[in-house]
Amino acid sequence: MNRSALISVGNELLCGRTVDTNAAWLGGRLFAMGVRTASVHLVADETADIVAALQAAAGQADIVLVTGGLGPTDDDLTRNALAEYLGVELEYHPELAGRIEAFFSTRGLSMPARNRTQAYVPKGAEPIDNPCGTAPGILYQTEHKLIALMPGVPSEMKAMCEASVLPQIRRRLGGPVIRSANLRCYGAGESSIAQMLGDRMRRGRNPLINCTISAGIITLQMIASAPNERQAEFLLAEQRAELEKILGPLVFGTGEQTLQDVLGRLLSAQNKTLAVAESCTGGLVSKLLTDVPGASQYFNFGWVTYSNKAKIEQLGVCTDLIEQFGAVSEPVAKAMAQGAARKARADCAIAITGIAGPSGQTEQKTVGLVYISVLNNEKCQVHRFHFPNAGRELVRLRAAQTALNLLRLELTI
Amino acid sequence: MNRSALISVGNELLCGRTVDTNAAWLGGRLFAMGVRTASVHLVADETADIVAALQAAAGQADIVLVTGGLGPTDDDLTRNALAEYLGVELEYHPELAGRIEAFFSTRGLSMPARNRTQAYVPKGAEPIDNPCGTAPGILYQTEHKLIALMPGVPSEMKAMCEASVLPQIRRRLGGPVIRSANLRCYGAGESSIAQMLGDRMRRGRNPLINCTISAGIITLQMIASAPNERQAEFLLAEQRAELEKILGPLVFGTGEQTLQDVLGRLLSAQNKTLAVAESCTGGLVSKLLTDVPGASQYFNFGWVTYSNKAKIEQLGVCTDLIEQFGAVSEPVAKAMAQGAARKARADCAIAITGIAGPSGQTEQKTVGLVYISVLNNEKCQVHRFHFPNAGRELVRLRAAQTALNLLRLELTI
Repeated sequence: MNRSALISVGNELLCGRTVDTNAAWLGGRLFAMGVRTASVHLVADETADIVAALQAAAGQADIVLVTGGLGPTDDDLTRNALAEYLGVELEYHPELAGRIEAFFSTRGLSMPARNRTQAYVPKGAEPIDNPCGTAPGILYQTEHKLIALMPGVPSEMKAMCEASVLPQIRRRLGGPVIRSANLRCYGAGESSIAQMLGDRMRRGRNPLINCTISAGIITLQMIASAPNERQAEFLLAEQRAELEKILGPLVFGTGEQTLQDVLGRLLSAQNKTLAVAESCTGGLVSKLLTDVPGASQYFNFGWVTYSNKAKIEQLGVCTDLIEQFGAVSEPVAKAMAQGAARKARADCAIAITGIAGPSGQTEQKTVGLVYISVLNNEKCQVHRFHFPNAGRELVRLRAAQTALNLLRLELTI
Repeated sequence: MNRSALISVGNELLCGRTVDTNAAWLGGRLFAMGVRTASVHLVADETADIVAALQAAAGQADIVLVTGGLGPTDDDLTRNALAEYLGVELEYHPELAGRIEAFFSTRGLSMPARNRTQAYVPKGAEPIDNPCGTAPGILYQTEHKLIALMPGVPSEMKAMCEASVLPQIRRRLGGPVIRSANLRCYGAGESSIAQMLGDRMRRGRNPLINCTISAGIITLQMIASAPNERQAEFLLAEQRAELEKILGPLVFGTGEQTLQDVLGRLLSAQNKTLAVAESCTGGLVSKLLTDVPGASQYFNFGWVTYSNKAKIEQLGVCTDLIEQFGAVSEPVAKAMAQGAARKARADCAIAITGIAGPSGQTEQKTVGLVYISVLNNEKCQVHRFHFPNAGRELVRLRAAQTALNLLRLELTI
């Protein structure tokens, strides 16, 4: 039992209304358990199509996970399709009907009649509890097959899968214990990191290292397999230490941590406050900082000074500096950071001024040019970047993330 | 020729590294042309798997669109799989090799040897020009089938598809001319809008109305089919007028416009400036406003006043007001907007104070409570909202979007 096939059911997935994210999530969870996904099938809300997909999937894999089509309406046909595929009848489960009714009544509602459909399960299969919604899942198992039907709503599907389906698969897989952990990196591309890690990233290695990139942040997922949990955790710890040694300051966190999470912890731990002055990023740094609950402990003052006048009036930048060097310059970035720190009486400050594009560039100063000033106590440094002109949004995101990362590095020295 | 099947090729799609967005995009484009997508197949970078998917797809549909696996490396096997499926050889196209070499040389690079692979095309198929990258697409057509292979990189795929593949399909479809247009709405849920539109949203109608929701913005795509372009455009215009009449101020724009695009145009047209003071949204409103290139024409000053001290010092909010009513209150929201407008000498101002959660709530003031103040010339109004507590990120996004929308409504009266 080590190959899976996934089926996502729903007309909305085929006409461009909804991007299917369930399959990628399931594929990732299975991959971390050592199960390879052979294929994904997206099909319409039609019994015949779902039956055909079940046949194809079961022909390719011993684990078949289906999401979607378990709701109470006429076009929710996944349970009927499973019954047809198995050649069995649907059976009414009164205790399930009771649970669905209870779901409504605890919310002060009465159960609509059509939700009764959800209490039917193909003969020989068993219901799976849904902690977050009305649609129960359905599990069918034989010696060589496991077929699970789960709701299409991602939050319901994930909760049910983690609570009931993955543990079942883990039990059936037997064999080694699988444990995984993440290291999060910023400041180098995927290929540079791959080159630094070299042979450590080859397939079939234990721990296996899986590299994903999302919005400039690189996640290295380490997946260890061992006869028992202690050994798996040991392998992970050893691997983590090695990667941290190789990658050094590129590693900023673990798990799902963001740059702003880590920076926030550093500021809290050192009992420091931060002020932010933004020109081209226009509020993005402040927005990222305040994505973190409790950011008010260290972040209180932010300025978006999108014009020269705003820089002069709000941050006390000298008119002369702007006239002599231009708003996108090292001296202005420095004066912005110093002005923000002074006005907020903050220990640290970040200031950003640059050209995010598409307009605003001159012959000397082109789109992507960004000055980032980082102030820590008395020390104020300015860094000059030329980010690739991959569009306004990406230039701004890279500038904001780089600023957070620079202050993180400054506070970890 | 009216049914399609899509194939997305790539190991990264099966192990959770990448969410496949190509299929949804293609499904949407085909749907707008009246072509129904029967299924989507996600398969690994293995020749046998791709061949099997081609067989399954061609059995279900007369239009088969494949993305991914056209790169120059050993695991790019889609062109080989098509040759195997068709039972033909790959042929070397010297003129293609020349074009790929030119792609590199115009960038001052020499072509790596392995990119030569990309000049091979299955016998009987023709190359498709790639305006944005090295991998040419491949088109195979018979009387009853059209199979197109395109790169997996979304930007390259979309450019190639719009330029070459969709026009080809449109020609082959013959029949009516299809035209589509969007109306963008904010301020009501999907189901309320569906109820307001009633029978107009039923399948099979002309124009067809397709409703999608993304980050709180509802897009109504109208798809008209007519014997010629003029009639299709007329149907769209008529439908648009009817929807705008029914939905009134819920409609804020067309095409891919955002609230900040539309607000920016209004401010520019009325020659007004805007200042922003944010507490719980922490910079998000400023960030959204500056997503729009050229926002400096109307937006110059923004404040993130995340603490009481910042509200008092930066915006001149009276200490008494905060002590008497609390920072999350109508009078404080109003004072923030007035302070921001005064300091920036702006015609308009937006101020937001609220509880984004998860912490910070009291018995009287719970997560989701947000006061939004909108100032236009001398007039300053405060609106009280209680957004559903669907997480910090969503509360903040809803608050920011609602603020932009309120000022839009104020400026369109």
